[in-house]
Amino acid sequence: MYPKDLLKTISYLQKLPGVGRKSAERFAFKILSWSETDLKQFGDLLSNLRNSVPHCRDCGCFIDEDCNYCKRESETLCIIAHAKDAYAIEQTHLFKGVYHVLGHLISPLEDLNIEDLKLELLLHRVEKLGVKEIIIALDPTLEGDATAFFLKNQLENLGINVSKLALGLPMGTPLEYIDEGTLTQALAGRQRLQ
Amino acid sequence: MYPKDLLKTISYLQKLPGVGRKSAERFAFKILSWSETDLKQFGDLLSNLRNSVPHCRDCGCFIDEDCNYCKRESETLCIIAHAKDAYAIEQTHLFKGVYHVLGHLISPLEDLNIEDLKLELLLHRVEKLGVKEIIIALDPTLEGDATAFFLKNQLENLGINVSKLALGLPMGTPLEYIDEGTLTQALAGRQRLQ
Repeated sequence: MYPKDLLKTISYLQKLPGVGRKSAERFAFKILSWSETDLKQFGDLLSNLRNSVPHCRDCGCFIDEDCNYCKRESETLCIIAHAKDAYAIEQTHLFKGVYHVLGHLISPLEDLNIEDLKLELLLHRVEKLGVKEIIIALDPTLEGDATAFFLKNQLENLGINVSKLALGLPMGTPLEYIDEGTLTQALAGRQRLQ
Repeated sequence: MYPKDLLKTISYLQKLPGVGRKSAERFAFKILSWSETDLKQFGDLLSNLRNSVPHCRDCGCFIDEDCNYCKRESETLCIIAHAKDAYAIEQTHLFKGVYHVLGHLISPLEDLNIEDLKLELLLHRVEKLGVKEIIIALDPTLEGDATAFFLKNQLENLGINVSKLALGLPMGTPLEYIDEGTLTQALAGRQRLQ
């Protein structure tokens, strides 16, 4: 019943995370009410997005033209799965080193194996940059843990200090809402009161 | 901190209904992960959306090329505020007549007044099509009611049967959740049991 280009727009919008058919329809009608200029500019922006927001050829983060991260001190390196994860880390204002984006995690179900991590690239960067400490900041999932475990074994051979993000209670959540797995980790990894 | 075209994408996505900063960021990162082909096609689709989904010059509904609604029997005409409202009415499979899209409602706060309803266009269509019955299907809000009231006065002068959508209980909602305004309308407009 919808005109065909409206239908196409709806099906693209349905690919967004958490967006079902009804929301996609609402979004599409809203977009249809935008001015011709806005539609043109937004459309051109998206058509060209892959080129205008490239990845840094060294660390893999999103960049404008130059990579601001790669200019920072390189003794500490943070390994992340996806380019977007850098923004979450940056929000802490605690990390001042450089990044390394893996692109994905080890996931046999998706046929992503150890070879896909391009370990030689990472090792080459670690050596070139003179990295002394590595922070592994991957999702606390089966895939993230497997990837972290593999990387740790490879990197510790080089005599580098390797750590990963602490597991424990998320701030502000009452104990009764914490799942037993997280509570087990928080207990096992209990931190000395300062 | 985000590359500037990523920021622009986020601010466009924030214009969608119910989408805040965080959701817009998630959407933008998801879009960035799409294939170059998908980005190009979606971008081109949006750039050209105003032309590829035009309004019918007669009734104002969205059309592909021809207007399917305007080909139907024209003794009954349904007045709606926005082109998208036709899809809601169509889902009932009960209305087989033609539509007339006002474009907006009377709303002094938004400086939309009686003149903006383009009444002469409506009256011209009513005469040309030989309309015998008019259903006013506007939002049950202050603006919708004011618009409906104005239209009724103008149209009844022509000796046409004018009705509006019934007010009452929405299907499936228990009485305890119904606001008193709706309940008042449902009581006042009680319908004889068949």
